Amino acid sequence: MEKMTAFQRFSRAFRENSSLTKMLIVFTISGGGLVAYSESKLDNGMNAITSTEVDGKKKRVVVLGTGWAGTSFLKNLKNSSYDVQVISPRNYFAFTPLLPSVTCGTVEPRSIVEPIRNIVRKKSVYVRYWEAECFKIDADNKKVYCRSNLTTNLDGEEEFVVEYDYLVIAIGARANTFNIPGVAENCHFLKEIEDAQRIRRTVIDCFEKASLPNLTDEERKKILHFVVVGGGPAGVEFAAELHDYVNEDLVRLYPKAKDLVKITLLEATDHILNTFDKRITAFAEEKFQRDGIDVKTGAMVVKVSGKEISTKEVKNGGNVSSMPYGMAVWSTGIGTRPVIMDFMKQIGQANRRALATDEWLRVEGRDSIYALGDCATINQRKVMEDICSIFRKADKDNSGTLTVKEFREVLDDICERYPQVGLYLKNKQMSSLVDLLKESKGDTVKESVEVNLEEFTLALSKVDSQMKNLPATAQVAAQQGSYLADCFNRMEECEKNPEGFLHNNEQALWIVAQPPEYKHFGQFAPLGGEQTAAQLPGDWVSIGHSTQWLWYSVYASKLVSWRTRALVISDWGRRFIFGRDSSGI
Amino acid sequence: MEKMTAFQRFSRAFRENSSLTKMLIVFTISGGGLVAYSESKLDNGMNAITSTEVDGKKKRVVVLGTGWAGTSFLKNLKNSSYDVQVISPRNYFAFTPLLPSVTCGTVEPRSIVEPIRNIVRKKSVYVRYWEAECFKIDADNKKVYCRSNLTTNLDGEEEFVVEYDYLVIAIGARANTFNIPGVAENCHFLKEIEDAQRIRRTVIDCFEKASLPNLTDEERKKILHFVVVGGGPAGVEFAAELHDYVNEDLVRLYPKAKDLVKITLLEATDHILNTFDKRITAFAEEKFQRDGIDVKTGAMVVKVSGKEISTKEVKNGGNVSSMPYGMAVWSTGIGTRPVIMDFMKQIGQANRRALATDEWLRVEGRDSIYALGDCATINQRKVMEDICSIFRKADKDNSGTLTVKEFREVLDDICERYPQVGLYLKNKQMSSLVDLLKESKGDTVKESVEVNLEEFTLALSKVDSQMKNLPATAQVAAQQGSYLADCFNRMEECEKNPEGFLHNNEQALWIVAQPPEYKHFGQFAPLGGEQTAAQLPGDWVSIGHSTQWLWYSVYASKLVSWRTRALVISDWGRRFIFGRDSSGI
Repeated sequence: MEKMTAFQRFSRAFRENSSLTKMLIVFTISGGGLVAYSESKLDNGMNAITSTEVDGKKKRVVVLGTGWAGTSFLKNLKNSSYDVQVISPRNYFAFTPLLPSVTCGTVEPRSIVEPIRNIVRKKSVYVRYWEAECFKIDADNKKVYCRSNLTTNLDGEEEFVVEYDYLVIAIGARANTFNIPGVAENCHFLKEIEDAQRIRRTVIDCFEKASLPNLTDEERKKILHFVVVGGGPAGVEFAAELHDYVNEDLVRLYPKAKDLVKITLLEATDHILNTFDKRITAFAEEKFQRDGIDVKTGAMVVKVSGKEISTKEVKNGGNVSSMPYGMAVWSTGIGTRPVIMDFMKQIGQANRRALATDEWLRVEGRDSIYALGDCATINQRKVMEDICSIFRKADKDNSGTLTVKEFREVLDDICERYPQVGLYLKNKQMSSLVDLLKESKGDTVKESVEVNLEEFTLALSKVDSQMKNLPATAQVAAQQGSYLADCFNRMEECEKNPEGFLHNNEQALWIVAQPPEYKHFGQFAPLGGEQTAAQLPGDWVSIGHSTQWLWYSVYASKLVSWRTRALVISDWGRRFIFGRDSSGI
Repeated sequence: MEKMTAFQRFSRAFRENSSLTKMLIVFTISGGGLVAYSESKLDNGMNAITSTEVDGKKKRVVVLGTGWAGTSFLKNLKNSSYDVQVISPRNYFAFTPLLPSVTCGTVEPRSIVEPIRNIVRKKSVYVRYWEAECFKIDADNKKVYCRSNLTTNLDGEEEFVVEYDYLVIAIGARANTFNIPGVAENCHFLKEIEDAQRIRRTVIDCFEKASLPNLTDEERKKILHFVVVGGGPAGVEFAAELHDYVNEDLVRLYPKAKDLVKITLLEATDHILNTFDKRITAFAEEKFQRDGIDVKTGAMVVKVSGKEISTKEVKNGGNVSSMPYGMAVWSTGIGTRPVIMDFMKQIGQANRRALATDEWLRVEGRDSIYALGDCATINQRKVMEDICSIFRKADKDNSGTLTVKEFREVLDDICERYPQVGLYLKNKQMSSLVDLLKESKGDTVKESVEVNLEEFTLALSKVDSQMKNLPATAQVAAQQGSYLADCFNRMEECEKNPEGFLHNNEQALWIVAQPPEYKHFGQFAPLGGEQTAAQLPGDWVSIGHSTQWLWYSVYASKLVSWRTRALVISDWGRRFIFGRDSSGI
């Protein structure tokens, strides 16, 4: 080994020594006093991995995907008795909530990604990663078929097969075009880093194109018409970011473009941000109106050509009209990836929208296959389907009737197993199932009364209406990944000591653990101009500049590593000082 | 206008107020105490531009290209009597000396670019920019034909014509493949930002590909064989950067790849860095040997297929051998762009290598067209061609002979007009032309002696052998751009008061100014491991870690704006703290 120089020694010490790594690196940018710690790069971790022998007896876990769900699973997996293989065409985890910021250069793409190898490197679990795409799942033979789409000049086969004992499917979803003609060909999407980079280049291209000397103002207006389809949080944030980018940075360099730019936001329902509180919706719509962003609600896109977007009014007779555009960004809903559709046919779920799992994230009808994140949907059990076995379980003395006391004893378990019961009680302002019974039997019911199966069924008849699918968000995916990792970590222990209120088909291993409970931490909707709306648990709504700072803090703290944290914070600082860059790269 | 928030007001004040803009933003990264000033973003500049009416009487100057030469011209042009139009497919200036750093992620691509609109925005000169490529120059009608290759959905024409009074051609060169089969298809180049980004992705792709499970070690070795063709400063720097990237960062994430990676540097001549001092060449070759970089000198590439590079030994009978490779980077010499070749045919320069200009950067045979940077070559006048007129000029008393006194009076002018005279005198250790005369007449000559035309011709007969083309470097291009801008700035003044020693065909305007004199500030060759070699004027050679810091300082100071300066410095800091990123984006 060559002699180390002073610089190398210092640099290496910085990275390897765990006491030094805690050294403060202060980025005194924008007076914010933002602080970042250097990341701990323990080489021990690497050595531990390289020296681990793959034990033939280890259970092979194959993870498909390196998004929120897959990465959260990998980060939380601590039981070294698994041999883990990760397969994904992206060798990095991307912090997708900041994608809209990437589209306009507020944050650099590289700042929000972390190589998956870096994430799994320091773990005691033996994890290998293959950069490839799974194109077929063979559940009968416990194999996945993968294809590498790297473009190096290789002699070997481009396809390979990986065998598993447990399969974790977390490959996310694709953008949903709803088979509307022309969308796939002409619209930009907001799913991947590459999408955001393309949008950024296209925005600049539009401004450059509109600056060319041989155009009429009419043509320039067409080119500078940016259309965002979908008034959800992503679409709204992108529209707001674009508005800020244009008005804070681009008008300086393209002064003539100022009066020609137009941003239109299309939403099929009556309001944008319709999953949010009405106060937020109203504030956003008002702010966008002030900003000059044209919000068209009740407008459904029916066709996109290379030059025009055709929309149909949902109300008022369904008039169809067309508007020319320069760039269109499609941000409405998610669809199922082909490999998942294929797999769904295989296991008899062909008529479903997404891969259905039970509450324990097990793919229905398949042991040892788990699906989480955007590619899956939890098929929550209905109370009505299990009403007899619930009654039987609760009726401990086998009397054929339930006393309120017997009932109370199993109430918590029921709420855990069937979250819709808890939701129903909460929405009805009732605090216990006793009230539910009262309602079904009338006010005359006494605490001491007993109910038979029929009355019990009547009391619970409406609770299933409260069943809701979990939203397709990063929060949900991350929590599911962490839950599943926890199950894997405690697998042996759980087998010995089952926990929770079990339902009737409890033959499978995973019922030993309690099903995951989703904790909603709230949701942000950045609205541009350093203002953000937030809907926090308990219907707490916060809108304005202070919320923007909350947004900065939460996003900075949620980033996957100290490295990305420092990079994103310094990107924010750069933007504050120098504005956003407008080079066409 | 909407109300400004406190944040916006602060941010805007920061950008616009010239006293605030001087505020220090301290990036205390890596203990270097590197300091950057916020860039002055005076809106006045923008307003000045928008309010400038294009006066029909203004001379129209069209600049092709936004590289070193074009940007340097634009930055230094201060005379507001021109109507300037800039045409280039790249809407930014790129600091190309840092391209090798971009290939491995030491510096981010966006940190070394500055939008050309930003560069020209603050000027008092009226400058417009079109993002398009010039595909035809019509010198007879003073028009250039341009094509926009932007990919927006446009109604208008994609081609347009721009008329000029003066044309400045500074479109640079393309990579030269010497028509070797397979090079264009299979090799990477190092000319543009996009090239560097592609190289970065390909390096990671190779490592990911080599990690796939279905390969033999032999195949992995092939994929991890990186070949650099060309032992000039760019090729050497890239090889060194790649070696550092692999050994400092990638081996942590791809531990098994360490023993399989190989970097080969191919050079057709006997030594790498052969334009540098021998001490530097020897140091570089020795360091590369220690680092395990395989330097193959005397090896000429004759063919590149998708899988193999074939080389021929220049000596030893010209054996041809082949080696498999994973990625090849081609970094040898520059070639002429098609539009220039076309133009050269038009003006009767078809058999030349590059567009020939006279010393004043005027394209030969064409008034009002100037060419500079890599696309042009100065066709220096030979003393022998002008010997009669030089003699006539010097012989002020028309005596038919020159006295030493008469001679001394014009010596400086001759050296300026014909730089080869100065070089010849310097190399021969002679301090004046008198010594030159002595040499030709023998030692017996006296100070008072007179020479006739024949003797004078004999004395100067060898000086033309000292003529050298200027190297195709950023330094030369920038100096030429600055010189030409200066000429344009002083055009009227120069017309009234011609300066310098004029040669015989002095009908044209530009002879009124002295030809440019190239000042060589030295050259760096970074060798990896925080070591750099530098060859400074006066044959001063410096090698080692201190030179690396000199390199950092010089490059930081030469960057085009405070913004890029701050970004590059913070990139260096990021790399020092967190290492280089290896995400495949």
